[in-house]
Amino acid sequence: MTYVLHYAPDNASLIVRLALDHADLPYEARLVDRASRAQTCDTYRALNPNGLIPTLETPQGALFETGAILLWLADTHGGLGPARDAAQRGNWLKWLFFVSNTLHPALRMTFYPEKYTGDDRHDQARLRRHLQQQITTSLRNLDAAATDWQFHAPTVLDFYIAGCLRWCAVYPADTDRSWFDLAAFPALHTTCLRVEALPACATLIRAEGLGDTPFTAPRAPTPPQGSAT
Amino acid sequence: MTYVLHYAPDNASLIVRLALDHADLPYEARLVDRASRAQTCDTYRALNPNGLIPTLETPQGALFETGAILLWLADTHGGLGPARDAAQRGNWLKWLFFVSNTLHPALRMTFYPEKYTGDDRHDQARLRRHLQQQITTSLRNLDAAATDWQFHAPTVLDFYIAGCLRWCAVYPADTDRSWFDLAAFPALHTTCLRVEALPACATLIRAEGLGDTPFTAPRAPTPPQGSAT
Repeated sequence: MTYVLHYAPDNASLIVRLALDHADLPYEARLVDRASRAQTCDTYRALNPNGLIPTLETPQGALFETGAILLWLADTHGGLGPARDAAQRGNWLKWLFFVSNTLHPALRMTFYPEKYTGDDRHDQARLRRHLQQQITTSLRNLDAAATDWQFHAPTVLDFYIAGCLRWCAVYPADTDRSWFDLAAFPALHTTCLRVEALPACATLIRAEGLGDTPFTAPRAPTPPQGSAT
Repeated sequence: MTYVLHYAPDNASLIVRLALDHADLPYEARLVDRASRAQTCDTYRALNPNGLIPTLETPQGALFETGAILLWLADTHGGLGPARDAAQRGNWLKWLFFVSNTLHPALRMTFYPEKYTGDDRHDQARLRRHLQQQITTSLRNLDAAATDWQFHAPTVLDFYIAGCLRWCAVYPADTDRSWFDLAAFPALHTTCLRVEALPACATLIRAEGLGDTPFTAPRAPTPPQGSAT
């Protein structure tokens, strides 16, 4: 059977794409046209009422929330994470949830501060500064705890973290991004190197125009199809 | 073996407590003294570097993040959620992650807006209004999707939702909470009724002083030990 991944370039869907290719699972990538806000139309909301990207159509129905899709794929197929009865399962899950409910939401808020402050640019910048401080703390804790979740082979948690680190370096395009320096987080830098070494990463780079070092030294994407924002 | 639940009354630990009692698992509840900010001390951070409540000590080490603990307990013991190979697993996981990474964080931000805006009360109130609108949308989507995750018996997802709904009604104590009306979400109201009917809820009420209707008609807690905030 074939999965359908509803994606936009350089959106959270890239993490799911890495997982699908890493496990060599067949899927059709279906572009969500962000330029026309296709993620908010009724057809898309019938799959994902929250109107967010990604959505993965599966034999169990349409799944959403990046962390849920990653975990479901890891539990349904092999090679993407520790087995349910593995001794490391708990330590892996706690950081998967942490990335999903702390790092990722804070990062997304830095992209769309107007949803929380209204239109004042000064208010938006202040919210972004608070969030970037919190993200830095989160990354420091994640870096220090890397042995809790870095197993022999990269898992979907590594993919998720690499994606978040990429976005720290690249978005929002029109703001000062000097607050973030991957070199300050050596274990997370290793994560990015490990993910970049995977064949699945080469596939991602081609599909979404992410350049040759999408995680260790990311640049703005040049997607062959669709728009990232 | 006995789990150790690090808790504070009416904190997210109450959801884990419900899960432990519902599955009849032995545990020691160890109070984290919020009044002295014990959750930020080195001893606690050695268990949970993020300094948040709850933490659950297990044979696999200290687990944190409410969603991760709930999922780990459900997968390790029976009777708390769909099995990993159940047909409903994906639909359940996506809403578990949604509650963990959208509903719960937005709610927490309404409790501590100063961490995002600084000290200005006007800025804090504005952020809270934006968040409360988003929470209302989240609850509407969750209510509409209830058949995706309401199985024959309540699962840890029901416990998590009930906890969040309680906090919508009760916190922050010194603000207008008329934005929230449980009656507007009939399926979620049913969730609260189902959770209140469980023996585990009676145990929770006694342990944390939550009154006789902690989810359908919550009141400020009167904990026998410790403080909620």
